[in-house]
Amino acid sequence: MEQLLYGTAYYDEYMPVERLNKDIEMMKAAGINVVRIAESTWSTHEPQNGVFDFRSVDRVLDAMHQEGINVIVGTPTYAVPTWMVKEHPDVLAVTSQGKGKYGARQIMDITNPTYLFYCERIIRKLISRVNGHPAVIGFQTDNETKHYHTAGPNVQLLFIKYIREKFETLDHVNRAFGLDYWSNRINSWEDFPSVVGTINGSLGAEFATFQRKLVTEFLAWQTAIVNEYKQPHQFVTQNFDFEWRGHSYGVQPDVNHFEASKPFDITGVDIYHPSQDDLTGIEISFGGDMARSTKGSNYYVIETQAQAFPHWTPFPGQLRLQAFSHLASGADLVMYWHWHSIHNACETYWKGLLSHDFETNPVYEEATTIGKDFKRLSPHLIHLTKTNKVAMLVSNEALTALEWFPFTQSGNKNYNDIVRLFYDELYQMNIGVDFVSPEENDLAKYRLLIVPALYSASDEVLERLNAYVKDGGHIVYTFKSGFTDENVKVRPSRQPGIIHQACGIYYNMFVEPKHVSLKGEPFLAGVENNGVETWMELLIPTTAEVLASYDHPHWGKYAAVTQNSYGKGTATYIGCILSPAVVRKLLAQCIKKAGLWGNDQKIAFPLIIKSGRNQYGRTVRYFFNYSAEKASWTYYYGDGTELIAGKTVQNNDKVELEPWGFIIVEEN
Amino acid sequence: MEQLLYGTAYYDEYMPVERLNKDIEMMKAAGINVVRIAESTWSTHEPQNGVFDFRSVDRVLDAMHQEGINVIVGTPTYAVPTWMVKEHPDVLAVTSQGKGKYGARQIMDITNPTYLFYCERIIRKLISRVNGHPAVIGFQTDNETKHYHTAGPNVQLLFIKYIREKFETLDHVNRAFGLDYWSNRINSWEDFPSVVGTINGSLGAEFATFQRKLVTEFLAWQTAIVNEYKQPHQFVTQNFDFEWRGHSYGVQPDVNHFEASKPFDITGVDIYHPSQDDLTGIEISFGGDMARSTKGSNYYVIETQAQAFPHWTPFPGQLRLQAFSHLASGADLVMYWHWHSIHNACETYWKGLLSHDFETNPVYEEATTIGKDFKRLSPHLIHLTKTNKVAMLVSNEALTALEWFPFTQSGNKNYNDIVRLFYDELYQMNIGVDFVSPEENDLAKYRLLIVPALYSASDEVLERLNAYVKDGGHIVYTFKSGFTDENVKVRPSRQPGIIHQACGIYYNMFVEPKHVSLKGEPFLAGVENNGVETWMELLIPTTAEVLASYDHPHWGKYAAVTQNSYGKGTATYIGCILSPAVVRKLLAQCIKKAGLWGNDQKIAFPLIIKSGRNQYGRTVRYFFNYSAEKASWTYYYGDGTELIAGKTVQNNDKVELEPWGFIIVEEN
Amino acid sequence: MEQLLYGTAYYDEYMPVERLNKDIEMMKAAGINVVRIAESTWSTHEPQNGVFDFRSVDRVLDAMHQEGINVIVGTPTYAVPTWMVKEHPDVLAVTSQGKGKYGARQIMDITNPTYLFYCERIIRKLISRVNGHPAVIGFQTDNETKHYHTAGPNVQLLFIKYIREKFETLDHVNRAFGLDYWSNRINSWEDFPSVVGTINGSLGAEFATFQRKLVTEFLAWQTAIVNEYKQPHQFVTQNFDFEWRGHSYGVQPDVNHFEASKPFDITGVDIYHPSQDDLTGIEISFGGDMARSTKGSNYYVIETQAQAFPHWTPFPGQLRLQAFSHLASGADLVMYWHWHSIHNACETYWKGLLSHDFETNPVYEEATTIGKDFKRLSPHLIHLTKTNKVAMLVSNEALTALEWFPFTQSGNKNYNDIVRLFYDELYQMNIGVDFVSPEENDLAKYRLLIVPALYSASDEVLERLNAYVKDGGHIVYTFKSGFTDENVKVRPSRQPGIIHQACGIYYNMFVEPKHVSLKGEPFLAGVENNGVETWMELLIPTTAEVLASYDHPHWGKYAAVTQNSYGKGTATYIGCILSPAVVRKLLAQCIKKAGLWGNDQKIAFPLIIKSGRNQYGRTVRYFFNYSAEKASWTYYYGDGTELIAGKTVQNNDKVELEPWGFIIVEEN
Repeated sequence: MEQLLYGTAYYDEYMPVERLNKDIEMMKAAGINVVRIAESTWSTHEPQNGVFDFRSVDRVLDAMHQEGINVIVGTPTYAVPTWMVKEHPDVLAVTSQGKGKYGARQIMDITNPTYLFYCERIIRKLISRVNGHPAVIGFQTDNETKHYHTAGPNVQLLFIKYIREKFETLDHVNRAFGLDYWSNRINSWEDFPSVVGTINGSLGAEFATFQRKLVTEFLAWQTAIVNEYKQPHQFVTQNFDFEWRGHSYGVQPDVNHFEASKPFDITGVDIYHPSQDDLTGIEISFGGDMARSTKGSNYYVIETQAQAFPHWTPFPGQLRLQAFSHLASGADLVMYWHWHSIHNACETYWKGLLSHDFETNPVYEEATTIGKDFKRLSPHLIHLTKTNKVAMLVSNEALTALEWFPFTQSGNKNYNDIVRLFYDELYQMNIGVDFVSPEENDLAKYRLLIVPALYSASDEVLERLNAYVKDGGHIVYTFKSGFTDENVKVRPSRQPGIIHQACGIYYNMFVEPKHVSLKGEPFLAGVENNGVETWMELLIPTTAEVLASYDHPHWGKYAAVTQNSYGKGTATYIGCILSPAVVRKLLAQCIKKAGLWGNDQKIAFPLIIKSGRNQYGRTVRYFFNYSAEKASWTYYYGDGTELIAGKTVQNNDKVELEPWGFIIVEEN
Repeated sequence: MEQLLYGTAYYDEYMPVERLNKDIEMMKAAGINVVRIAESTWSTHEPQNGVFDFRSVDRVLDAMHQEGINVIVGTPTYAVPTWMVKEHPDVLAVTSQGKGKYGARQIMDITNPTYLFYCERIIRKLISRVNGHPAVIGFQTDNETKHYHTAGPNVQLLFIKYIREKFETLDHVNRAFGLDYWSNRINSWEDFPSVVGTINGSLGAEFATFQRKLVTEFLAWQTAIVNEYKQPHQFVTQNFDFEWRGHSYGVQPDVNHFEASKPFDITGVDIYHPSQDDLTGIEISFGGDMARSTKGSNYYVIETQAQAFPHWTPFPGQLRLQAFSHLASGADLVMYWHWHSIHNACETYWKGLLSHDFETNPVYEEATTIGKDFKRLSPHLIHLTKTNKVAMLVSNEALTALEWFPFTQSGNKNYNDIVRLFYDELYQMNIGVDFVSPEENDLAKYRLLIVPALYSASDEVLERLNAYVKDGGHIVYTFKSGFTDENVKVRPSRQPGIIHQACGIYYNMFVEPKHVSLKGEPFLAGVENNGVETWMELLIPTTAEVLASYDHPHWGKYAAVTQNSYGKGTATYIGCILSPAVVRKLLAQCIKKAGLWGNDQKIAFPLIIKSGRNQYGRTVRYFFNYSAEKASWTYYYGDGTELIAGKTVQNNDKVELEPWGFIIVEEN
Repeated sequence: MEQLLYGTAYYDEYMPVERLNKDIEMMKAAGINVVRIAESTWSTHEPQNGVFDFRSVDRVLDAMHQEGINVIVGTPTYAVPTWMVKEHPDVLAVTSQGKGKYGARQIMDITNPTYLFYCERIIRKLISRVNGHPAVIGFQTDNETKHYHTAGPNVQLLFIKYIREKFETLDHVNRAFGLDYWSNRINSWEDFPSVVGTINGSLGAEFATFQRKLVTEFLAWQTAIVNEYKQPHQFVTQNFDFEWRGHSYGVQPDVNHFEASKPFDITGVDIYHPSQDDLTGIEISFGGDMARSTKGSNYYVIETQAQAFPHWTPFPGQLRLQAFSHLASGADLVMYWHWHSIHNACETYWKGLLSHDFETNPVYEEATTIGKDFKRLSPHLIHLTKTNKVAMLVSNEALTALEWFPFTQSGNKNYNDIVRLFYDELYQMNIGVDFVSPEENDLAKYRLLIVPALYSASDEVLERLNAYVKDGGHIVYTFKSGFTDENVKVRPSRQPGIIHQACGIYYNMFVEPKHVSLKGEPFLAGVENNGVETWMELLIPTTAEVLASYDHPHWGKYAAVTQNSYGKGTATYIGCILSPAVVRKLLAQCIKKAGLWGNDQKIAFPLIIKSGRNQYGRTVRYFFNYSAEKASWTYYYGDGTELIAGKTVQNNDKVELEPWGFIIVEEN
């Protein structure tokens, strides 16, 4: 699309009163130019098995088109009709908790052929009906697809076949997973037990990989069907989401975003984040970086919050700040979930742009200013391209393995806590970040690679990382990296396994820190930030320099953080969970070493800088003030134009930002 | 009955040793004149299917009669014998947690015809046997009856028929409940899913209403059977109970007390309350007010605590204070649960008047003084009639709807917290209160109506409430009132819906307060009590006066509490959860506005005043000291006689109360 | 065995690489002279139904023998192979949580004949194969056997037959358990319900007794089979464990150790305990005292920790301190679980002597010094005999009964908390303790008996305890003792039932203390330790002396702690939960009264003394320093030799201990 898209999800089917024309009028007033429809309403479109009723789709398409609003049509497959479950109860996923119950969405066995049959039929009926409609610019297949923990007998059967294809013989399986332990050895394929009760983390993690593959395959299958109908100017996208902690938090455990996004023309995501006093922009940036990294390209924010929950209703100014933050990370579309607040059922208090009364309100009014600015500035802001020199390597496999083997028995921190510990500090220092998968072959384009807790990885991956350092790359590893292989088998060598070559250290003991801190003040981050928590490895340097040691009567002789020159690069290894303040200082040191410390680092959170090149080849820089206080600083970049106000800005100008305010400068 | 009844539950069946004559001797010594028997012991009375053994009933009736002690006989249907469950496992309720297991009481499907068949047979056998016995003064049908969450396939079937009778067509259902959402639309009656897994709060709340109706019908059915045998001088009652938080707390979620009490001659309730340092009398008053309000008449306290739990064993004086507090709310009977402490099973530590050793003890000894005073003062204290000018409107439907849509995601406050927030302050100000249901048509007899969180209500109810104000009534609404209709569909109008007419305000935004308080000190309740918590609506007055606004950088322009003149009355609207201290001040203001502030308000908790008229037409006033400190104050009422001591009291006398003491004055 | 045994569990089957010879070399270097094998690896030894493969057993036996290392062979029955569960899913225990799932160990129905058939076959195959091997010194049957809460229909059937055998008629059952309550009465054997849902604690406790009997019978059955093959020089042992709170804590609820240990030649236990800063030695002492008491003889520590968890990895010196602490309590064998850290599955982070890298490490290196000292000092340290004058009476039945009837509704303290409250203080005062069961008939050998919370006991037991006091014994009872009979029926007499004769007190009221403390400072333990918590009985002395009363406005007249002379002895009764400090002072007083206060009491924790006689008839005394500080004190005992350093020690010498250090003195 050659314009920034701004819109909402729209559910004509949920309306308690006739609203279509009035809604479109209010949308137009707000500059809304796209809506997403149909992804949740299968029971309306197919009220009985084989009986179709697309009247609400037709009328919305026609009405939107008449007023020039684009439409994305979703396949309505992530919530199944009552008749299907009554006829075929086995379309519901069987999980470790037992049979599913009808009611919620996302309760199906996505491998069930009955479900797939009905999916295919409704997809073909719907997409073939709307693909020629001039309002339709693209499609979304399913929604927030996951595997819903499907693990019934049929899925176990598929898993056994998957295992046989991958490992060929049971001897390989028994050895790879260490199944002799506790008499779990499998000596005949017929004996393969359901993994629902397994205590073997290798087997369990393999099953999780298999379940993620089911998602990848399901989405590829849907997309292939839609592609049969898609017109050249139309796109297919998905709405991926993230680990959920009451809001989008980190890497999605149940989907491999890198793999699953491959069949799509463009990656879509939903991003929900804390707001009001707790608005930081971190999740906007994190979700955007992940979405952009999947295809190395711009992305769509298919869903984000308008009013949403009572604890999220934005303060004045925040809705604008959020919308432009999405653009600054590379989004070409921002859609709210959703237009109107729903009058029944479990998302009644997840409010849309409009409240339940359909009248104007302060949030809607703020949206109207966004729509106007999006339209006015679209040529300057669309298709922002970003070239980051820092990447963070994230791994679904490491995440799952650490679910099976948490840092402590209480298990109150998981993989994403570590990812976020490092990501958040990079964000706050205004370091632009890409995400890469362990399969990434083109690491050379990055100067600095952050590798948090890469607990499970093959020899091949670790050797590639060693080679990256040798060839001049800089890498920061945390504890647990390299510890197990791709089958979550602990390496029977000195730890941290293969990467000890680049890191110049080894260890074979680790403890849970109690009254332990860093000795002295190695990173000048303040003694109060010296604490070590949750996990510590007792590192012994071979060739590495010790950056920090532990302060403890018994563990004081071991290193906590080391740095090693290896070939043309350096590898930094962090053996314990450090405070955010120490992580910040340590990362700053590594960034400087990689030659990446620049003007953007002269200010820091709550002042956030994001930049890229627009389609005119000019650098566009966003400056955001994520705070309730006014802010001012010196503009150190090339002369340009501040796009919102249309004023020129020159190097060394004093610049001011309102609370929750921002400016956008396009360099000349 | 023309005497105050004082007694206990009595279980001859549970005795480890022969006790009957010795027990009756001790009862007589304590002034006990009534016992309740047989409601828990079906397996003793029908040891095998169709084999009956009422020996323990017979002998207790005879022995009691011989010593002039009255007996209430319960139908033993709330705990089923082993043989029934072995023969017919499907008499156990299937709930959302699955099939039931034998063991506890109250586990049956109260719609199951097998269970009903056996119920009817044992009821007819037992009641026809005892109805002519001179000891028997009345009957109790079942005990603490609820629906036990029965939700199996047969109950789902009944529910569908109930829905069809109520809504006629699925189109009506789909529209009323918004079932298009998440593909929950039902397009054929055969497709109607079990509601056990529903995420639709409208459907879920309707099912709860239906389940409460099952209770109403079950009790009416039992009562009709008992009525066939009942003699003219005998009564039928029930033992209702309340929301349980380790003690009786608030409105019973699973029973509509107003509806279910209709077939009974007199309403009975059980009331259990904190004791020792935590004894306040609030639950005694709350439960009594509710019981009295169901039929606008005196009531029975079928169960209350004697020694009970280790944390309840009363301090000296408290048992007396409690007993007379029941009378002061309008009780004509006070029965302890139970006579002797049980030697086996799960209520071993729920002790009776006697400990396990059957000997005398301090609590029993205190009971003997109560029994004597009850007997001596019975003509003056029985049949107290109360005429309250303040009522509180409570609604099972609002309660259930707020279970589906709690104030916050953590959901740590529910409907009854709001009811109690207001009730407790009225109690502490010595304001007598009736409860009314949303169906109450005779509101005009009240000067002030408190309406907490009436979240679900029909247009008709809200219009009746508007009319009440217009005609001169005073009303206090809290937040959430009027928000949804009788189907828990949010009204698609400005909020608070229909009542905005009387309230003169509207709002379409609400947030979760964080660092929010009331601006200034509008109610002079102390700045430390100014906080606003959990929920706040951003109120905009149209014609209302603003009584309080929020203190917050962004929400400061909105009103928190408003008051509006409408017709001849006023409507006060509270948009947020206030501190108890502020609620107290605000209620005091409304009470004064309603012209109800009087002598009773010159003192306050821990000094509690309750009053009414006795059968001689004289005013009786109880003065209770709910504290461990002595208290003294001035008696501002008409000259009269203090009944306990038999001394005269005159206006302006100085009066003293012992710790946990009380006096009763009958005006001349 | 005529040498101290020092070893580890060894799992050739779990090795990711060939290690056997290298491991044995490292074992030899560490002085390891015994390994335990085979108890977890059924699926390796019987890969298919009836197909056997003992290659790993054979090769380990041969290789160990070649280097003179002894082997204990375990029957591999506590973890079942996949083929068995696939063929016969009903070998898995059905519990109150439903059907089991394959994966973990210890999930079988130990009464299932299919399981028993396969058990017997593998036991006979394995034991007959290895019993003649010169490396094999003994056998272990199963491992940490419990009943796994098996409670399916077949187990219910067995239970009914057990009940009928014990009680003969249902009338007896109904009366003993009070089943009339809540209509639970059973009037025909066919009606006997599954007890899974019971609310009757008497029935529930009887079922727990029955389940413990299943364990006793299962182990006796296995042992009888092994005994058929056992050579005269070989032993059979078990590996019992304790209530688990993240480590060994107290009396094992699911096994009667006194009964279950009878068929064994020697009792084995596993003992896991807090470490690092939290190492106190209490669990080592507790588990050792229990193991020693089962047969009044030396015992084996079949499993204890080497590195284990990250929060347990020992500080330097602690591994030595622990190993000799086991000997000091009477152990003749100390084995670590396990040799190498496992590379897969759920105990990956329960590390062995070696880390995952199989290299040397500080913990292994410390073990080498232990092995050498064990070998060198074996003649002096083996077969330590202990003669304690203090015993603690513990009861599985009381434990279970208090699970059904916890002290408070929140139930945050259980029976073992009370046991440990007293045991820990005795330990810290250096009082050696035996454990006795309620069935113990030879109480006269003890001067002082501590009886914590003996909530369920027969008349016969209580009368035996009365007689013990009458004959000159000293006894300390806590609250709840004597309250119910062997059927957990509350005694319908004054409390504390039969023991009131010896105690000279009674009570019939008890409360939950709130702001209650002891009056004055009766035990001079500091006012800050005067508090009373959780439970208090309102004691009334008849002949007893009041040692302490309650400080409370209403309960102040009641006694809290009493002491009574009865016959030639005294009975102390404690009516409430006291602080550890007060328990310490009170116990000290009772110890003095019993004439047991001696030199060992001149020092106290963290300085711990343990002693006994060795095979030369000489007294051996261990002095342990359970702290990170150096310690010094005066040696008040007879002249002797400090065995570790080989130096003489004389009475009144000044002695020094390193942090976490110890010495061993053999008196001349």
